[in-house]
Amino acid sequence: MKFELTILGSSSATPIFNRNPTAQVLHVNGKLFLIDCGEGTQQQLLRYGINAQRIEHIFISHLHGDHYLGLVGLLSSLNLNGRTKPVHIYGPPELKEIVDIQLKHSQTQLRYPLQFNFTQAETPAILLENNDVRVETIILNHRIPCTGFKFSQQKRPLNLIKSKIETLEIPVEQIPLIKQGADFVDKFGRVHLSADLTTKPQEAKSYAYCSDTLYSQTYLDSISGVDLLYHEATFMHNMLKRAEETYHTTALQAGKVALEAQVKYLLIGHFSARYRELEPLLAECKTVFNNTSLAIEGRTFDIGNIPLK
Amino acid sequence: MKFELTILGSSSATPIFNRNPTAQVLHVNGKLFLIDCGEGTQQQLLRYGINAQRIEHIFISHLHGDHYLGLVGLLSSLNLNGRTKPVHIYGPPELKEIVDIQLKHSQTQLRYPLQFNFTQAETPAILLENNDVRVETIILNHRIPCTGFKFSQQKRPLNLIKSKIETLEIPVEQIPLIKQGADFVDKFGRVHLSADLTTKPQEAKSYAYCSDTLYSQTYLDSISGVDLLYHEATFMHNMLKRAEETYHTTALQAGKVALEAQVKYLLIGHFSARYRELEPLLAECKTVFNNTSLAIEGRTFDIGNIPLK
Repeated sequence: MKFELTILGSSSATPIFNRNPTAQVLHVNGKLFLIDCGEGTQQQLLRYGINAQRIEHIFISHLHGDHYLGLVGLLSSLNLNGRTKPVHIYGPPELKEIVDIQLKHSQTQLRYPLQFNFTQAETPAILLENNDVRVETIILNHRIPCTGFKFSQQKRPLNLIKSKIETLEIPVEQIPLIKQGADFVDKFGRVHLSADLTTKPQEAKSYAYCSDTLYSQTYLDSISGVDLLYHEATFMHNMLKRAEETYHTTALQAGKVALEAQVKYLLIGHFSARYRELEPLLAECKTVFNNTSLAIEGRTFDIGNIPLK
Repeated sequence: MKFELTILGSSSATPIFNRNPTAQVLHVNGKLFLIDCGEGTQQQLLRYGINAQRIEHIFISHLHGDHYLGLVGLLSSLNLNGRTKPVHIYGPPELKEIVDIQLKHSQTQLRYPLQFNFTQAETPAILLENNDVRVETIILNHRIPCTGFKFSQQKRPLNLIKSKIETLEIPVEQIPLIKQGADFVDKFGRVHLSADLTTKPQEAKSYAYCSDTLYSQTYLDSISGVDLLYHEATFMHNMLKRAEETYHTTALQAGKVALEAQVKYLLIGHFSARYRELEPLLAECKTVFNNTSLAIEGRTFDIGNIPLK
């Protein structure tokens, strides 16, 4: 039940001070989800020893270059390295046009299926739902259409205590029912309560990614109570005017969002090139919301163990 | 009269082993020319302390991603960092389409003029000529239209020995004539020979860049006698069949090209991801042409001082 986030890039707009543009990998039960894909993402995957071929789903929040310019290079490298299994991309419709024209002019025929799933930035929608996770859009407020993404682990069944199967002679067909919470009646007619047969499963956790947005309360419902919130904090609060002009958030405001949405833990990232040192952004954010870390490149956050130590 | 080449990337197709896709910077008398622009080029410029704002002309050999995918990110960063002076791009016509669609969907209005100059891959053409340099295309033979670029320093006038101006009372209007080789007649009617008034200028040097190509003799004329030739050497010669299938050159063949074209010095690059160690490629090439180096990232080659030590 792995549910971990690795930061590949934390810079806004331009790479600087060894910070790369935005990209993250979410590990969910052995599967990898790539969230945004700034220029140099494939180099970052190599740097941190993450096998790009394990990525099945790629989510692009919006079409500012710092969030997607690494995509075509990554898709091309997957192809050159022998990929055959599909890649699913979730992003604005125009992204397909951008990818297609580049594959066309390089005369590249991908040897794997590339499946686009278009996002829209008006109302939240479910993009993907499988046994592991449900992914929904978060409607953000940026200069161009932009969505965040919320990843919710699916609720797991109860864990049946293995030794009980033998001692009580539980038939195989009864096991799924017990895992759903049913009691068990053995061959002597004795009732064994569900609570005595099972242990509680790991709690289903959730992660919300708010890439680029003006601070507002419109998306609080979408991220309410998540275990881990990544929120952009491009500027310090003394740059509020600039943040508002460019539809970005300050570190103080990111803390307010976390507080108002009652999330358990906050990561701030998407740092402006004007900040060589990031500690002041963290300190400012913590004046409002203490459970916060910086989204430093190469760091992995275990969402299954919030609050983080 | 600086004429230096700095390697920013030397990998073919996919980045690997800390090698980035192809990009180079040519320094010509204080001006910077960018030659190809693979993904991560702007990060490489930062890494090697090269001010991207000094780049005026960008040359793209062809539209395989490893040669241009860093372009839109670079253009965007130049804009965000306040550029106002023009950028001139030389490349296939389809490159404009690729750049335009991405500027459009990110709703980016560049604050500097972006001037495209289209290359064609049928016959060599002069792309640029100014006081410093002449740039011509080299017609290569790749899977898609592809040109190399030849940079020739302009012949410099003779250097007038400064002390002569005062001692012989040379009028200002005579100076350009003397620099072109004219003798000087002083106010007493005495003739001073050009050879006594001047020293020889630095020799005009040349650099040829052959990005991706099948080995052939068709472009030997275009690169004949250059001081420095960069030639791709994607594979070792035991991979000749693969090289031919993919329209690439082996290290041995790169040496043959250098020999046949009678160049003074050779750099090999564009190394396949299958080679962690590059010394065997260099050794193979040197069996044919000894004056060869590897195009290692971050290394600068002084074309004014060939043969290199």
